[in-house]
Amino acid sequence: MLRLAPSGFLRFSQANSFEVIYGGGESNVAVSLANYGIPTEFVTRIPNNDLGDCAIMEMRKRNVGINHIVRGGERLGIYFLETGAVARSSKVIYDRDHSGMATIKPGMIDWEKIFQDTTWFHWTGITPALSQGAADACLEAIQTANRMGITVSTDLNYRKNLWKYGKKPSEVMPELVAGCDIILGNEEDAEKHFDIHPEGVDVTQGHSVEAEAYTSVCQQLMAKFPRAKK
Amino acid sequence: MLRLAPSGFLRFSQANSFEVIYGGGESNVAVSLANYGIPTEFVTRIPNNDLGDCAIMEMRKRNVGINHIVRGGERLGIYFLETGAVARSSKVIYDRDHSGMATIKPGMIDWEKIFQDTTWFHWTGITPALSQGAADACLEAIQTANRMGITVSTDLNYRKNLWKYGKKPSEVMPELVAGCDIILGNEEDAEKHFDIHPEGVDVTQGHSVEAEAYTSVCQQLMAKFPRAKK
Amino acid sequence: MLRLAPSGFLRFSQANSFEVIYGGGESNVAVSLANYGIPTEFVTRIPNNDLGDCAIMEMRKRNVGINHIVRGGERLGIYFLETGAVARSSKVIYDRDHSGMATIKPGMIDWEKIFQDTTWFHWTGITPALSQGAADACLEAIQTANRMGITVSTDLNYRKNLWKYGKKPSEVMPELVAGCDIILGNEEDAEKHFDIHPEGVDVTQGHSVEAEAYTSVCQQLMAKFPRAKK
Amino acid sequence: MLRLAPSGFLRFSQANSFEVIYGGGESNVAVSLANYGIPTEFVTRIPNNDLGDCAIMEMRKRNVGINHIVRGGERLGIYFLETGAVARSSKVIYDRDHSGMATIKPGMIDWEKIFQDTTWFHWTGITPALSQGAADACLEAIQTANRMGITVSTDLNYRKNLWKYGKKPSEVMPELVAGCDIILGNEEDAEKHFDIHPEGVDVTQGHSVEAEAYTSVCQQLMAKFPRAKK
Amino acid sequence: MLRLAPSGFLRFSQANSFEVIYGGGESNVAVSLANYGIPTEFVTRIPNNDLGDCAIMEMRKRNVGINHIVRGGERLGIYFLETGAVARSSKVIYDRDHSGMATIKPGMIDWEKIFQDTTWFHWTGITPALSQGAADACLEAIQTANRMGITVSTDLNYRKNLWKYGKKPSEVMPELVAGCDIILGNEEDAEKHFDIHPEGVDVTQGHSVEAEAYTSVCQQLMAKFPRAKK
Amino acid sequence: MLRLAPSGFLRFSQANSFEVIYGGGESNVAVSLANYGIPTEFVTRIPNNDLGDCAIMEMRKRNVGINHIVRGGERLGIYFLETGAVARSSKVIYDRDHSGMATIKPGMIDWEKIFQDTTWFHWTGITPALSQGAADACLEAIQTANRMGITVSTDLNYRKNLWKYGKKPSEVMPELVAGCDIILGNEEDAEKHFDIHPEGVDVTQGHSVEAEAYTSVCQQLMAKFPRAKK
Repeated sequence: MLRLAPSGFLRFSQANSFEVIYGGGESNVAVSLANYGIPTEFVTRIPNNDLGDCAIMEMRKRNVGINHIVRGGERLGIYFLETGAVARSSKVIYDRDHSGMATIKPGMIDWEKIFQDTTWFHWTGITPALSQGAADACLEAIQTANRMGITVSTDLNYRKNLWKYGKKPSEVMPELVAGCDIILGNEEDAEKHFDIHPEGVDVTQGHSVEAEAYTSVCQQLMAKFPRAKK
Repeated sequence: MLRLAPSGFLRFSQANSFEVIYGGGESNVAVSLANYGIPTEFVTRIPNNDLGDCAIMEMRKRNVGINHIVRGGERLGIYFLETGAVARSSKVIYDRDHSGMATIKPGMIDWEKIFQDTTWFHWTGITPALSQGAADACLEAIQTANRMGITVSTDLNYRKNLWKYGKKPSEVMPELVAGCDIILGNEEDAEKHFDIHPEGVDVTQGHSVEAEAYTSVCQQLMAKFPRAKK
Repeated sequence: MLRLAPSGFLRFSQANSFEVIYGGGESNVAVSLANYGIPTEFVTRIPNNDLGDCAIMEMRKRNVGINHIVRGGERLGIYFLETGAVARSSKVIYDRDHSGMATIKPGMIDWEKIFQDTTWFHWTGITPALSQGAADACLEAIQTANRMGITVSTDLNYRKNLWKYGKKPSEVMPELVAGCDIILGNEEDAEKHFDIHPEGVDVTQGHSVEAEAYTSVCQQLMAKFPRAKK
Repeated sequence: MLRLAPSGFLRFSQANSFEVIYGGGESNVAVSLANYGIPTEFVTRIPNNDLGDCAIMEMRKRNVGINHIVRGGERLGIYFLETGAVARSSKVIYDRDHSGMATIKPGMIDWEKIFQDTTWFHWTGITPALSQGAADACLEAIQTANRMGITVSTDLNYRKNLWKYGKKPSEVMPELVAGCDIILGNEEDAEKHFDIHPEGVDVTQGHSVEAEAYTSVCQQLMAKFPRAKK
Repeated sequence: MLRLAPSGFLRFSQANSFEVIYGGGESNVAVSLANYGIPTEFVTRIPNNDLGDCAIMEMRKRNVGINHIVRGGERLGIYFLETGAVARSSKVIYDRDHSGMATIKPGMIDWEKIFQDTTWFHWTGITPALSQGAADACLEAIQTANRMGITVSTDLNYRKNLWKYGKKPSEVMPELVAGCDIILGNEEDAEKHFDIHPEGVDVTQGHSVEAEAYTSVCQQLMAKFPRAKK
Repeated sequence: MLRLAPSGFLRFSQANSFEVIYGGGESNVAVSLANYGIPTEFVTRIPNNDLGDCAIMEMRKRNVGINHIVRGGERLGIYFLETGAVARSSKVIYDRDHSGMATIKPGMIDWEKIFQDTTWFHWTGITPALSQGAADACLEAIQTANRMGITVSTDLNYRKNLWKYGKKPSEVMPELVAGCDIILGNEEDAEKHFDIHPEGVDVTQGHSVEAEAYTSVCQQLMAKFPRAKK
């Protein structure tokens, strides 16, 4: 994904240049792993144009594996970021529809081949938020990983502005998360994706309420997704 | 439309910022007219987000009328420009699909109201190249202008890379150009849009061949589109 | 007015470029109102050169009315800003003398015509600080507004470095403020412009002293300028 | 003098930063001499503020002597430069009125003291174009130099846009140039300053007309200013 | 190697930033080959610090193999470039001494292992110009390549300013070039490295002298280095 | 010394330009003194190339005397700075070996001549950390200053990463500091250079421990270096 942002604290309407960064939530994880010396393959679908090449170059530069990236789709997803200052909040304009990843479909990626040489598959809640096809491809990957005995982890990562294709998170995420061995997330993720709320928290008890609430949410998540309990 | 370009002669893969310019073929005409002190209204469809606001601000800044711009559509059209140098040619990546203008439909713009206060309507061949809806809206405007007795001019402006929605220029342009009083264009435009080629040009005659060819093409255009003959 | 500033925390002597912003206290108010959708006209005198055009373009871009701006004067006022850091304070170099606004005179602006279509006139203490002519034109505007029944508001906005033309604020401001329905300001403004100090404040009373002082100053201002009492 | 210019070929209205250069015709000569290792003193009047300091720092950096610069005046002269491109010509906005140099008067500079340690005084036609005071100070310097037996050179350097204070060049320049031992200039300078035109040039003679014209102008200049004849 | 250059045509003394490019003559060849889809390995010695990492990242980004780069040496070679303009020529300041490559020694690189998987070795005259150790390592590579039957090519690339370690090119280059199958170069390279001059060229024959001279030099090179004759 | 740094908080691997600053610990002291109007001479050894010229220009610009700078050595010392952010610490890459100052030797600077016109000599612990030659030249300066009755001050300024030429600070610094009248430093400097630790500090006494420790260190320093006791 391509991030375009005015420099410093300039507003969109004040900028006559945008800073260019190729990246995203999942690729940041891949770069971090690569920085620690762990072999990674970043699996995605990127359009076959110069901007797609730039996104791939950035990952290759950072030592992230790009051998299983599928080239296709009309465009590279973009998001425009205006950094807030003082009382003015940051603004994000997503322009990711119709991107290579948003128009992915099951069958486009050969998960079996990819998983042959790995032990771990990580995905985030951003992918199934993009489109039905992306959610389906994600499910395909998780089920293949489960069948092949590969560890699956997820970062729930709820993003309100991305769920626009007609399905609610609660209709999509449970089936995906059911195949995960490790679940990362917080109270908001749990509420928005699974309608899970902290239970039995006595708010009159003081400071530890937050920790209690978090524990309650984790216990409910583990009850709902027993695979992650192991 | 938003133009994003690396500065100077940097390639996409060398840039960590893009220069930002809001504009396009038609808006350049409008700005030029405004610079000469001629009142203009720029009619288009622009998404209702901060980038759309920036595009409108740029036109207002340049004294172009923005009273009849319709807000709508998912995104602002983008094109990425890498300026060539020496033997390396320039590169353009169009990312205009699904833009406010590409998803326009007849009925979205109230041409009658707009034309009440004007004497001239100018359009270019870029618009009908974007989508069937844009071509239809263009036809709607031309026919309304004809009915209301307003002068119509066009810049044929053939762009090979833009005609991607299934129709050939020759299936779309003749009906549109038929309603024009003034036609701007060159031999390539005439050939690609109407299959008109220079006729009876004796290439053994020397230097004036190019002028003759141009005259021949003009005569054929005027014969084909008698309204422009007046 | 043109603001020129080294980027970030660079000092003047380290910068080889200055960031360019066209604006000022009054135009900031106008832009804010325009952002809230309120129709505004920014009335000022701006030289008839390209920099003047740029200042006007910026206001038009921001949807501020520029229909009553008078073009004239030798130059656009400039101020140079060096932003401080840690123990080093910010520096401002005013270069506003001889600007269009500093050389304005009564009669140059047709206030009656301007006020026909509005209900509110806002001015600040920066204008009468520039020159005798600016103070006179300001008084002319206030008196016309009073005669035509338009609400007048002022932001006292005392700026020590600007009062250089020979008059003290206390010789100029009372007559101007007497025509105001709404007065914005603080203790410093009241002291410097009208020699008004907090009265009867018992500083042994603790935390509320500041609020008491402010209330005392407001009461004295209202007593001195009964129009604002309504 | 401070030059402010948009970068590259940007227009004023497209720039949100200006490149900063401190310099001018005379200081360029001084820097060139300093680069060749020749001791120089740049004599001028510069305001006592941070921008004035920057101008002096630039000269000191370039090894130009700044020991005889007089600090004073309200402001540093500015000129804004927009570099042309293709058919669009460059634009200069002079904002030099009321500068330290424009408001100089005879007596402000101790020429006798300065000339004690030098053998050469160089001035240009830009200085007397700024104001009566600048012309008078220039005359004062030339006469002192003549009296003390120092070589005087001038670069006539006619600038139409600068002669705005009421005198014509032909009323001012002859007395100044009469004290010069070396005169640099071209046909335009001779015409505009002294109404000297090429004489006796037989334009039917072909290529050498330009050289003949130049020779004719030089001969007339030497006749008019016999000091330069030596 | 790290190239640092003021932007545009700024001189060193005007710049307060330098543009950063990691590259060099040999890596440019490698990037070009990679752009054509040809697998390459760039063999060099780069210091084990963040700048060395950056240089490697740039090559990996461009799809150049970095598997055989040896990490070591105190510093990354730098060259500072000031681009000339009009009559002012470009300036290069080499700061490459003591770099990883300048302090390389035979035995540091395992050429046998590297050449096992390749069919071609390319080197340039820049390497043996850096230091005795670099020349020795270059010879070691060429002899290993010859022994293993790998094609060897060289770009003679004479750089006067680099030969500073005490040997003349004519003492070093012949032995190196003797092992080459393909020699790229021009008349200057031939003269400076091998004292080869065009022979038997009849300068009275007109236009083809330059081609004749080049042919003469090539024939002498092939006679001197029979391996390249094949 | 030349400091090269990515702008803002960019990492080395994200930057395609470096900000350029010529300076260093000692030159900062000299600039500060010059800003207060105190005459200074900055004595150092700087290579005879354009970058060396730039370093000297920067000092001359800031009104620091450069009359006793010796030109020589291969290169200007460089340090690369990546500014940290949040949890990521800043990084410095020193590239100062083989610089003009690192390769200085006793006899290269004529201290007697320099000290004739001054009353004070200031040095820092950075210089003897660079090389044996720099330490020797430093000792030569201090002994000359002592002999001529000039006040000597030092800023101990321990920099772990710079002591790489084989000597420990404790082998070099005592002889140098013995000639100083004024010693600036802190507990770390005292420990690393002279193995001096706070003595007799009762850590059970609370807040004033730090002040006591500092006092103890100062007393030991004065005992060890009686010249500074005066």
